[in-house]
Formats: sequence, structure tokens, C-alpha cells
Amino acid sequence: MKKNDIPDLVKRMLTGETLAAARLISLAENSDSNEEIIKLITPHVGNAYIIGITGAPGVGKSTLTDKLVKYLRLQDKKIGVVAVDPTSPFSGGAILGDRIRLQQLATDENVFIRSMASRGHLGGISSATSDAIKILDAYGCDYIFIETVGVGQSEIEVVKNVDTTLLVLIPGMGDEIQAIKAGVMEIADIFVVNKADKDGVERTVLEIEMLQNLGEHKEHPAPICQVIARDNEGIEQLVSAIQEHHEFLQQKNMFDANRKQRLEMEMKQIAHNKLLQKTSEFLQENYDLNQLIDDVYNKKKDVYSVINELLEEIVK
Amino acid sequence: MKKNDIPDLVKRMLTGETLAAARLISLAENSDSNEEIIKLITPHVGNAYIIGITGAPGVGKSTLTDKLVKYLRLQDKKIGVVAVDPTSPFSGGAILGDRIRLQQLATDENVFIRSMASRGHLGGISSATSDAIKILDAYGCDYIFIETVGVGQSEIEVVKNVDTTLLVLIPGMGDEIQAIKAGVMEIADIFVVNKADKDGVERTVLEIEMLQNLGEHKEHPAPICQVIARDNEGIEQLVSAIQEHHEFLQQKNMFDANRKQRLEMEMKQIAHNKLLQKTSEFLQENYDLNQLIDDVYNKKKDVYSVINELLEEIVK
Repeated sequence: MKKNDIPDLVKRMLTGETLAAARLISLAENSDSNEEIIKLITPHVGNAYIIGITGAPGVGKSTLTDKLVKYLRLQDKKIGVVAVDPTSPFSGGAILGDRIRLQQLATDENVFIRSMASRGHLGGISSATSDAIKILDAYGCDYIFIETVGVGQSEIEVVKNVDTTLLVLIPGMGDEIQAIKAGVMEIADIFVVNKADKDGVERTVLEIEMLQNLGEHKEHPAPICQVIARDNEGIEQLVSAIQEHHEFLQQKNMFDANRKQRLEMEMKQIAHNKLLQKTSEFLQENYDLNQLIDDVYNKKKDVYSVINELLEEIVK
Repeated sequence: MKKNDIPDLVKRMLTGETLAAARLISLAENSDSNEEIIKLITPHVGNAYIIGITGAPGVGKSTLTDKLVKYLRLQDKKIGVVAVDPTSPFSGGAILGDRIRLQQLATDENVFIRSMASRGHLGGISSATSDAIKILDAYGCDYIFIETVGVGQSEIEVVKNVDTTLLVLIPGMGDEIQAIKAGVMEIADIFVVNKADKDGVERTVLEIEMLQNLGEHKEHPAPICQVIARDNEGIEQLVSAIQEHHEFLQQKNMFDANRKQRLEMEMKQIAHNKLLQKTSEFLQENYDLNQLIDDVYNKKKDVYSVINELLEEIVK
């Protein structure tokens, strides 16, 4: 048997072999075989519930994930965790520490933990994460957590893949709340105020409520859960809030609608990336790009004429 | 004559009619006529020198631009200024104030000032700015300043359009320098330390030098110019530094090479946007997108098979 025989790896993963799942995620992330993998597992996906955990560095996302996973393990759920680490020269140490903490769970064969580096462009993270979610879903996970490191654009991209997004904050973050509110507050389905034994927790809750009132009025404002993840306090209530959000989505017929909307975005992203790749291959095979650039630079042709001619060659 | 008769507007702009230039920039920004405009003006571009001015809010970019413009006007140069305002709910007031200050120059018919809002995606700003630069170039400007409001990703996109980038800092910005250094310090061809009569100027200069040493060793480290823009101090030296950077680029055969590289990026961006547009038009005309999404959602097909079939229809 070939080491990377994908149909065989898929078969083994579907019988619960952890190493096969790990190998498939690596192959999907680092090679062109993601298409073959996704084709083979498509009949087996759609059962996992996907939860995104985002928030600024230092708010305790990994500890929270750890406690949520342990709580759900007591209910005999199978869990996947994908930690998305945007490449950053500053945060390397912290990420490593977080990962080591999470690895304590790694001796449990029903908890699958995977770190993904977000090399390259945003679409890349999003599509690698999306593939990993599908593989863990087919692997039989009941819950998949997507934990991001920051709250920038890449995190917003990543949480587009999830059913319920937790935005984690800590007391005394007033300024940070101000700084992140544009475009980030809106992604929260549930606000989690961690380290809720710290001073200023009431103020943080109040600030979140005020920002929610400033924003577009949601029919169902995101609940605010106070937890002390380190001491395992508030975890049960948070899991209830996640389940209530799930039920809310289903009652409003938004669960499938949201997933279809995400699927539409995913399809556009894939089509987009493939088009770009085909175009650049076509250019390399058929054109001297430097000559075209020289022609435009020397004003023999204008940029739009050159591109329109090229596209007529490429697009039917 | 039709009000928006583009060939006529171009003809009038080429004879120096300011209102025609203004109208063409608006048309290029807000309509599909940018292609026609660029085609008509292409023979007339390539003479202006393009300078980017970027830096955090409050460092005095507008005052600096104002003083640079006035200095170059004494040498009878024709000047264009494009101020790129990323849409932000927080900075509206400051931008307005800056613009009003700049408008004092607007009575001079050899100074053309234009504000551009960066609505929509990053590629959008970059391409609208790029069109505006070409129009002002054909209009006969000797120097075109692109002033950005912040130092985020959109500003990095914008300065990809320029020959020389000034990164403006002020004393006492140590923390900010730390925060922006990744990806932004590298874009500076010249560091401008404004408000150089303030405490801490030596430290700021030292910090810039240290960061330069940390980064990849440039053959030609970016010079650091101390100015007090408000008092018109250091402006002549800064203009000299810009001219030296221009000469350096020419000596190293980098001036044309850089412009060609920018042209290549611009062409790819345009091709990219057009491909996306063509694809979505094709999809709308020929397919029931919702049906395709339902098929994938209901696992009748996998996402990659659907997209590969579609692309075979679209791409030759």
C-alpha cells in the first residue's frame, strides 16, 4: 500500500483511525490532494457542530477551549480542535505555550487537536480550515472548535466557517473593545467575559451591552456569559448558551440557511482561486508577460486593451 | 456636446482645463468609463513623479503635503494631490479638517487636490488611485502626492502606486513604531520625523535606525529627515532627499524596473477583477446557483466537482 493512498486513508479514518485523520488534514493543507479527499468524504460530512472561539491575545481562549472540551467529553462527545495561528513574529511564544496546554488533552483519543499556520493569503487560511473541518466532521467529531489567535481580518475570515462564534473578552478591556468593535463585535453570537472574578467585570458587560445597542438592532442580541475558565466556572452555562444558539438558528430556519450561505462563499472562493491559477498558467504557456508589460510601459498599448485581449483568449 | 463625452473631456484636459480633469477622475472612479479614459490618455502619461505620504493619524501629513506643494510651486511645478481616506467612522472629522487646510491651495490653478474615499475592497482603492494618478499625469502634473490617512493594509496597497514613499512619524511614538513596524517600516523610502522640535526626537531617530538594522539590510538605508512642517523647516532638505531617491533609483536601473513591477501588479489586479466579474455574470446567466448550492449541501455532488465542471464551461 502506498503511504499516501488517499482512498485507503479515508477508509481508515472513517473507521476511527486517528492517524489517518491527521495524515489527511496534512495532505489537504499541503498538497493538491485536497480535492480528492473532499470528494471522498463528502457523503460523510454535515453532522458536526462548529464553534469558533476568537478574541485578543491573552484573554484565555485556549484555557476556555480546554475546559469546554473537557466538559463535552464528560458527555462522551467526540471533539476536534483546530487552532489557527496567524504567522506573526511577535506571538510565537504565546502560541507555543497555548498549544502545550492543549496537548494535555491529546492523550484522549476522542479529542483531536490540530494547529494550522496561516501562511499566505486570507483565502488560504479559510480554505485550509474549511477542509480540516470537513475531515474532522467525517472523522465523526460531534463538536469542532476553531480557535483563532487574534481578532484581525484573518480571524473574521476563519469564523465564517462556523455555526456559533464566541468572542472572548476580559474585564478592563474598554479600549480594546473600542478598537475592535468595527467589524468584529458583529461576528459574536455569544460574548464570553472570561476572568470574571477580576475588577471591572460589570463595566465590561455594560460596555458590550452599550455597543450592542449602538449597532444594528438584532432580533436576538448575543448573550453575554461570564466565566472563570481557569477555575472551570460558568462552563456549563456557556455550553447551554451554545446549545440555545443552535436551537435558535434551527427555529428561525437559519441553521441550514447559514450553512448554505457559507457554502456559497466557499464555492466562490474556490472558483476564484482556480480561475487565477488557470489564468497564470495560461499566461505562462502562451505569452511573454514581460513583453506585454514592456508594451504597456512604452505606451504601445494601454493596460485595459492588453487585458481584454488576454481574457478573450482565456474565457469562452 | 454630451456632458460626459469622454474624448472631448480628454481633449480639454490635455489643453489644461482643470474642470475636465476633475470630471474625468470622478468618471473613472464611479463608472465603467475608466477603461475608455485610460485608453485615450495612455500616450500622455509617464512624466509625473509620484510621491506617497503615509503615517499614523495626527503626525501632520496634510501640513507636510501643504508645505511640500508650496515649495515646489515656487519652482513653478504643476502639482496633483490625491488624499485617500479609508472609510472609518472614527476619523471623519480629522479628515475634513485636513482637507479644509489643503483647500487653501485650491485657488492656485496649478495645484489639483482630490479626496478619494476608499469604499469597498482594497483592490478598489488601489485601482481608483492608480487611475487618478494616470489622469493627473496626463493633465501635466510634474509631481503627484498620494496622501493616505493611516498605515494599515489599504495604505500599503496605495503606496504600491508610487515612486518614493515618505513615512511620517513624530517624536514619542516608540510604541506606535513597534506596532507598525511589521510590514510598514519596509515601505519607507524616506523617514520623515515631523514636529522635530518636540522632546524625544533623538530617541525616535535612534529607534528608526535600530529598526532599520533589525530588518533586511538594505544597500541604501532610507534616510531620516527631521522637519517642522508647521514652521516650514526642513522642507528644502526633504525635497532634496526625494530627488536623491529618484536619482538613486535611476542609477540602479530601478526606476523603470519598479514602475514595470507596479504595472505587472496592476495588470494582474485588473485581470483578476475582470475574471471574477465575467465568472459571476456567466453563472447568473447560465446556472441556478441556489440549485448548485443545494446539490452540494445535500451531498449529491462535492464542491470541487461542481466548480471544476463550471470552470470547464467558462475557461477555454
